[in-house]
Amino acid sequence: MTTAPPNPQAWTVEETLALIRQLCQPHESERIPLAQASGRILRQAVCADMDQPPFDRSAFDGYAIRLDDDTAVFRCVDRLRAGDWRPRTLQHGETVRVATGAALPSEDLQVVMQEDVQADDDRVTIRQRNPDRNIRFRGEDARAGQVLVEPGICLSAGALALLASVGCTWPAVTRRPRVVHVVSGNEIVPCDQTPVGGQIRDSNSILVRTFLNTWNIEPVQLPVPEDLDAMTAVMERAQVDPDCVDLLLVSGGASVGDHDFTRAWLATLGYTLHVQRTAARPGKPMILASRGPRLAFGLPGNPLAHFACLHVYVRQALRRLLGTAETPLFTTAPLAHPIDTVPNPRETLWPARIDGGTDGVWITLLTWRSSGDITALGAANALARLLPASGPLKRGDPVPFLSTNSIP
Amino acid sequence: MTTAPPNPQAWTVEETLALIRQLCQPHESERIPLAQASGRILRQAVCADMDQPPFDRSAFDGYAIRLDDDTAVFRCVDRLRAGDWRPRTLQHGETVRVATGAALPSEDLQVVMQEDVQADDDRVTIRQRNPDRNIRFRGEDARAGQVLVEPGICLSAGALALLASVGCTWPAVTRRPRVVHVVSGNEIVPCDQTPVGGQIRDSNSILVRTFLNTWNIEPVQLPVPEDLDAMTAVMERAQVDPDCVDLLLVSGGASVGDHDFTRAWLATLGYTLHVQRTAARPGKPMILASRGPRLAFGLPGNPLAHFACLHVYVRQALRRLLGTAETPLFTTAPLAHPIDTVPNPRETLWPARIDGGTDGVWITLLTWRSSGDITALGAANALARLLPASGPLKRGDPVPFLSTNSIP
Repeated sequence: MTTAPPNPQAWTVEETLALIRQLCQPHESERIPLAQASGRILRQAVCADMDQPPFDRSAFDGYAIRLDDDTAVFRCVDRLRAGDWRPRTLQHGETVRVATGAALPSEDLQVVMQEDVQADDDRVTIRQRNPDRNIRFRGEDARAGQVLVEPGICLSAGALALLASVGCTWPAVTRRPRVVHVVSGNEIVPCDQTPVGGQIRDSNSILVRTFLNTWNIEPVQLPVPEDLDAMTAVMERAQVDPDCVDLLLVSGGASVGDHDFTRAWLATLGYTLHVQRTAARPGKPMILASRGPRLAFGLPGNPLAHFACLHVYVRQALRRLLGTAETPLFTTAPLAHPIDTVPNPRETLWPARIDGGTDGVWITLLTWRSSGDITALGAANALARLLPASGPLKRGDPVPFLSTNSIP
Repeated sequence: MTTAPPNPQAWTVEETLALIRQLCQPHESERIPLAQASGRILRQAVCADMDQPPFDRSAFDGYAIRLDDDTAVFRCVDRLRAGDWRPRTLQHGETVRVATGAALPSEDLQVVMQEDVQADDDRVTIRQRNPDRNIRFRGEDARAGQVLVEPGICLSAGALALLASVGCTWPAVTRRPRVVHVVSGNEIVPCDQTPVGGQIRDSNSILVRTFLNTWNIEPVQLPVPEDLDAMTAVMERAQVDPDCVDLLLVSGGASVGDHDFTRAWLATLGYTLHVQRTAARPGKPMILASRGPRLAFGLPGNPLAHFACLHVYVRQALRRLLGTAETPLFTTAPLAHPIDTVPNPRETLWPARIDGGTDGVWITLLTWRSSGDITALGAANALARLLPASGPLKRGDPVPFLSTNSIP
């Protein structure tokens, strides 16, 4: 039996995030087909390959006439659909029927909307003419060579559409980190089994996998017994080469009891321990270690601690490894319901719910008692951050939070 | 040559959304494995199958003693790890070593944290004792039978963890809508080709597919020429049975020109036209049609119009078809930068960017001139909604918006 272990330094959330930023460097990029790039982090500037739009286009269905032509009745000399390309110089009294998006036959034209004309065969009478030219001019959205997207953005549907429009069909994106997730805990049974005395179901495997999937990462997940030799054997059987693991996540076994093997195991693998506990709750007994550019987290097994550590620390590590543009991890929203919290000496990462209505975005702090609680996760879509020794909070008080449901 | 077509009724955004809610009913549900349920809409209430936690658990590594025992030096009679199950009645002067998460051997105990004892072999001296029991009591998070999650939520990582913890491994979720996306437009070339005179690259296919993928929907995408017979032939060649298409999206061909076949094609397929244009920009020439429970949208081909119509109207249809809990589609945020808009008689769906900092969430309206613009999509993560005839807006003015980057 051991004596009580020494109390390692407790790292604040800020200190831990700063250390993660320092330990991680963005991975190299790779070129992938645009169709597979959703959710990936762009690592190149994307420029317009030609003027956007590339030619003067009609903004409506109508009739193109010369700007300097004050004729009232025109003769229709051509009909242009979108996709047609038939340049011609219009004479006074001549008009060309143009569909929305059609390339105009020349410069110095105006499009009269079809609603404003009377057309009989090729004879077109203008009933109403106003100064609008109804043309989308070449280059009015962007000039050839202009930078349209900076590196570091997460490729959304809209950004992918933009890349498609300029022919950037093999964008450079950060390669995906290789992640191994090791689930330890003798009390854990698979979630399709009924736990018996002393056991609980594994909820962390699906939490971690789903969290990583939102980053397009498919982790290798390995359940292991709480035993150093057995852990090593499992990794060997799975043929996991530790040198190829960019991010190692270990669920459970993170506190300082006799049976917490994470520390010892990371040491055998050659990792240097940096953080052994944080000054925040839940997630106090969290381990952060590194081995060259490779990072490892020992995440306390309790569900709320897992949720909090993933969404704060692991998220920060992934943002950094992926080269995501540096934006604040936390923002603030006003508190929807006053809360009479018991002041806690530690900073608190509190499961929360963000709701938006006609009066803006508000945050509700959800009920929880212990890091082992899980029911708050049914409604949580955010994680609030309460300062150490926060007392009661009033409705409208600004509360820092991060969304746990957004695209990363 | 035709005369100008009649001007159909212009539907406001509110009217269109209300009509969509009225036309769509939630699809039936299906049971799927939990591991595949991320992003799906839950259609059952999920209850605790047993008390949570199911037994009194130690909250820390420490030593369990009787609450009524004021002994100072104890004899350690057992050691319990998480997962062990060895009930016993402790006598005065007896203690049991317990790891975090271990099931306590009986009731009426207290756990003294290991930091507060001196342990030599089986002799345990308590150095400090305070009133905290350091126990997570059976049922303190939830009681057996208690409803933990209501139907209608989108299954996030946290919600899936909760379902796993109560053994809900085959949740009932709404079946996925079958979506066909038809891309028309003679001016469109695939995005890996260089457009020549009059042509532009297809950006809508990837926009629509990526948008639908965030809902876990994989659409069938069919490029078609702008020709009624050819459109029908393409559908037949692809063996698309219109009776099996829950949602039909047609890109392009939605305005009222000679070459806009969407209307005619939907009529041949037996759809009833409800909306032929909206009172909003971009996205004025939008078609909404239905055929029994099946819905069809004709989306104007311009990129910004596509982006807006997808994120507002198609999103509302999907929320309804999937049985998502009714929450407001739009919320508000204060405007980050004043904007001197030219008042427009139509309501405007404006590409925008939401940024969160330490002073809360702010919205920036992005620059665009026409619905054919695309560059704003590189930065957009939201769609703002400006009332008809909105004049200049000041910093801090509340602006309605919806996020285009959140989990639906």
